[in-house]
Amino acid sequence: MKNNNQYVVIMAGGIGSRFWPFSRQHYPKQFQDVLGVGKTLIQQTSQRFSALCPPENYFVVTNAAYYELVKHQLPHLSDDQILLEPTAKNTAPCIAYAAYKIRERNPNANIIVTPSDHLILDSYAFMEKLKIALDTTQWSSKIITLGIEPTRPDTGYGYIQIEERQYDEVKKVKMFTEKPNQALAEAFIESGDFYWNAGIFVWNVQTVISSFEEHQPDMAEAFEDITADFYTERENESVQAAYSRFHGISIDYGIMEKSKNVYVVPCDCGWSDLGTWKSLHETLPKDKNQNAIQGNVLAYEGVKNCIIKTPKDRLVVVKGLENFIVAEYNNVLLICPKDEEQRIKHFLEDAKNKKGEKFV
Amino acid sequence: MKNNNQYVVIMAGGIGSRFWPFSRQHYPKQFQDVLGVGKTLIQQTSQRFSALCPPENYFVVTNAAYYELVKHQLPHLSDDQILLEPTAKNTAPCIAYAAYKIRERNPNANIIVTPSDHLILDSYAFMEKLKIALDTTQWSSKIITLGIEPTRPDTGYGYIQIEERQYDEVKKVKMFTEKPNQALAEAFIESGDFYWNAGIFVWNVQTVISSFEEHQPDMAEAFEDITADFYTERENESVQAAYSRFHGISIDYGIMEKSKNVYVVPCDCGWSDLGTWKSLHETLPKDKNQNAIQGNVLAYEGVKNCIIKTPKDRLVVVKGLENFIVAEYNNVLLICPKDEEQRIKHFLEDAKNKKGEKFV
Repeated sequence: MKNNNQYVVIMAGGIGSRFWPFSRQHYPKQFQDVLGVGKTLIQQTSQRFSALCPPENYFVVTNAAYYELVKHQLPHLSDDQILLEPTAKNTAPCIAYAAYKIRERNPNANIIVTPSDHLILDSYAFMEKLKIALDTTQWSSKIITLGIEPTRPDTGYGYIQIEERQYDEVKKVKMFTEKPNQALAEAFIESGDFYWNAGIFVWNVQTVISSFEEHQPDMAEAFEDITADFYTERENESVQAAYSRFHGISIDYGIMEKSKNVYVVPCDCGWSDLGTWKSLHETLPKDKNQNAIQGNVLAYEGVKNCIIKTPKDRLVVVKGLENFIVAEYNNVLLICPKDEEQRIKHFLEDAKNKKGEKFV
Repeated sequence: MKNNNQYVVIMAGGIGSRFWPFSRQHYPKQFQDVLGVGKTLIQQTSQRFSALCPPENYFVVTNAAYYELVKHQLPHLSDDQILLEPTAKNTAPCIAYAAYKIRERNPNANIIVTPSDHLILDSYAFMEKLKIALDTTQWSSKIITLGIEPTRPDTGYGYIQIEERQYDEVKKVKMFTEKPNQALAEAFIESGDFYWNAGIFVWNVQTVISSFEEHQPDMAEAFEDITADFYTERENESVQAAYSRFHGISIDYGIMEKSKNVYVVPCDCGWSDLGTWKSLHETLPKDKNQNAIQGNVLAYEGVKNCIIKTPKDRLVVVKGLENFIVAEYNNVLLICPKDEEQRIKHFLEDAKNKKGEKFV
């Protein structure tokens, strides 16, 4: 099952701003034990692939500012396995950088690309699907995305439509749609042809590189030009220069939506992107009043359907609060209705501009 | 105006539990700068009498546990001026102790008794009324209470009814009524014959002592028996023994309601007992949404009629919270509807029993 050609690229450069104040600029969510299970999200993510990829085939791409956090949390990684981005330019460059670097070591590499901050509850089901994907991409130029069967008309996710009802495990993609409105999201669920895009991709390194050459030629050229510097002391400097040669773009817009050879492997593995307080509320265990509580909390009558996540050393006494987020981390306390959490990015901006960097 | 016979007794033994989590067992409200003005409530109280009483005529009665706090906040007081109660037995013993001790120094003493944790905005008006009271009690055995013209049918206060419409400044009291129900409180306001009992009394030391002899003979005897020990190193021990000889009772129940010679001087001096979050909300400056905010707070749409009092080093972001108390102090955060603040004593009990002494 473990295969020397199998690689995993963990994308760990995000700042998780929708999850403020818990996710902070200097300590984003992937480096935190969001679920209170004793392991950070990136540690859980890393562990998830240990049966498929040998330890030297792990690559983490992150912002240079998070180097120490990665080193500390994944101490088995060598510096060659920690790819430092000089600036955040969304997911496409991050994947290109890793692919070009991996190709220098192994032109037959078969690569899993994954976010570092998602939850997968059923790791066995997840691995079964990954095996199907890896088997497919080992000898073909298909791009496989894991598709999550949607359980609600969520307007915050990207959706993948398949060509028509297909009975293969590997289904041809017709279209990607980012963040639909409510009516559209409901129609998607109704039709049965749509999956959530979990942002987990499987493709071999040749496919990655030819996709970039076709759809993001600037990016492809920038990395092609510096391949000689990978694994040398010039790497960081060259990467910095390369990053100045292209604009940032997501892998979805930059590659997936333009590619003809994208396929979905549906995967029912208890996935959550943990992207928002609401999604965390869904994931965490809840009391009889549907409150998900992490912290030292006394909750009284009328506290319902809340998510309360506060430091253990502080006693929090709450009464009469319904559908709220109460979250405190590192000297920022947020009290906000759950249904208005899309405003959090705005709060974060205000906090930065009016109150200072230490609060973001 | 200053008169060597004029004394002030500041009662500072309370723990202000209705004001939790700001008022704490080891650091009650009178020792805190509740209003954010740079002076604690007991410091403001002390200053209020400086034009009437010479410094050596100040006596503070407090719990032995608060000795250091008093010393620190009122450093000009000698140890003889700080009366330490071995246990809290309500206000009557506290006043008796001070009166018996003062009599040993000055049998012609004319005494103002005052809580340490109230707000008086118009100190000039307050002083004018005190002068009338002091002039009255200097040569008479009247007991004067300051009466606050009620501005709302508050069910949390004690009310004083005067005999009938009287046009003297000093009005004969007919009856005391503690914490009436809503209908009664409304009728009180309607009638115009009622004042709030501010707990501020003016009487000469002979009147105090004869009142105790008549209505609280156990207490009178207990203190009479130890007069020789006042101002000696035996005082604390003797007081401890004396306190075991009587039951605790408030000055209102124990003396005022039983006395025939009680009079009111009405006083419109911007008084608040600051006894509750609601009363503090009324007192503090408010923004256009009627929020009283002390702290580093970003308040967004829907935040109305709240009192938010949180540490300055913590950013608090609030949205969509109406009529709430958000209060944090020393690792306790309270989020509670303003109308349910009578539950705070219950929360405090739970915090003590379930979470430990450090939170109370």
